[in-house]
Amino acid sequence: MKKIGIIGGLGPEATVDYYKEIINAYKAEDRALNYPEIILISVNMSNFLTLMDSKKFDEATTYLVDRIKRLHYAGADFAAITANTPHQVFDQVQAKSPIPLISIIEVTCDEAQKKGFKRCGLLGTAFTMNATFYSDVFRKRGIEVIMPCDNDKQIIHQKLFTEIELGIFRDDTRQILIKIIERMVKTNQIDSLILGCTELPLILAETSYAGIPILNTTKIHVKSIVDYCNSDL
Amino acid sequence: MKKIGIIGGLGPEATVDYYKEIINAYKAEDRALNYPEIILISVNMSNFLTLMDSKKFDEATTYLVDRIKRLHYAGADFAAITANTPHQVFDQVQAKSPIPLISIIEVTCDEAQKKGFKRCGLLGTAFTMNATFYSDVFRKRGIEVIMPCDNDKQIIHQKLFTEIELGIFRDDTRQILIKIIERMVKTNQIDSLILGCTELPLILAETSYAGIPILNTTKIHVKSIVDYCNSDL
Repeated sequence: MKKIGIIGGLGPEATVDYYKEIINAYKAEDRALNYPEIILISVNMSNFLTLMDSKKFDEATTYLVDRIKRLHYAGADFAAITANTPHQVFDQVQAKSPIPLISIIEVTCDEAQKKGFKRCGLLGTAFTMNATFYSDVFRKRGIEVIMPCDNDKQIIHQKLFTEIELGIFRDDTRQILIKIIERMVKTNQIDSLILGCTELPLILAETSYAGIPILNTTKIHVKSIVDYCNSDL
Repeated sequence: MKKIGIIGGLGPEATVDYYKEIINAYKAEDRALNYPEIILISVNMSNFLTLMDSKKFDEATTYLVDRIKRLHYAGADFAAITANTPHQVFDQVQAKSPIPLISIIEVTCDEAQKKGFKRCGLLGTAFTMNATFYSDVFRKRGIEVIMPCDNDKQIIHQKLFTEIELGIFRDDTRQILIKIIERMVKTNQIDSLILGCTELPLILAETSYAGIPILNTTKIHVKSIVDYCNSDL
């Protein structure tokens, strides 16, 4: 088994979800207690978001590359970042990384392609919904990525940073998010929905909403991490 | 804030508990999202327990020192091990560690002394209950540590490794553990009880059982980690 490197803390709720899901994958294989070594750096979320907010992308890249180098010093053979938002600078980070990185966007795109989706809705932070890093990857494989309208984007971002990232999961917030998905199905004819923030599956835990299938980016990313950990590559 | 180093995975359930409790401590202080950097190495539990089981204490020491050095390479300013069992070799590990370590035994003893306890019962793995690393530390401060009878030790160890370490929390197991505590109160006149395995507070979550107060080693350890992280020491 390769040593798994994880950049976490963006936010902590999803970090726990990744750790538990990786451990569970080995429990399910009946290899109880024989877990792979996981090296995690949980960063200061506030510091990183300040860089993203002020569009200091070079500094954000340096910040992530520094942590990945430190994961490597600590023995990690490869790494993954447990959040969608930092993938805005994924290509720059990967170019400077001493170890292979598994992109949440690439593996989600693999899954969308395998399932034959053509028009994927995308919910995430404003950073993710206002950027093109999802649509750039998906467009190359002939898949359109559709964002919510501006008003809905604002609602989602606000709910993420005042509740969900803090581990507060309210039923009325869940209903608001489901209404947004219903609007996107009706207005934009999306055939599937990407939960493009690794905290969103903690409040939207079903495999379909508004009659369309959900791409749970945490679950897809964890499966890729475990497969790579176990592989002879 | 100092960078926190954590040796986890012994077992994974308690590791999640530590991580969440550390993060929660900062939420409670209204410093939302401004979390300290946490560097965690989650080890292969099966490998480590094999060393302990075959009494290869020098190898177990080397195993832990290697991980602590790697935490240090990754930037940790100090470290803690999220389990009681490995504290059997704590003194040897500390002697070779490049960074300060916070002993779960020492901080639990501080707490017992502060509360004026004189006869503490101890539940933990067989490794912990059959060793003297708890009683050695507590005796120096005039506190006796009392173990369950041999039959009860076997029951606790078996429940830990077939259920609790795997995240299985059954109500009948909880009742068996409470019966053991009741027997210790009656037979040994203990005035308090140490949950000397960081998974035990996940199944025994109350602050008292059988009429005596509980020392939750996870909670006590996390508080010390957070205090040291925030201190100017």
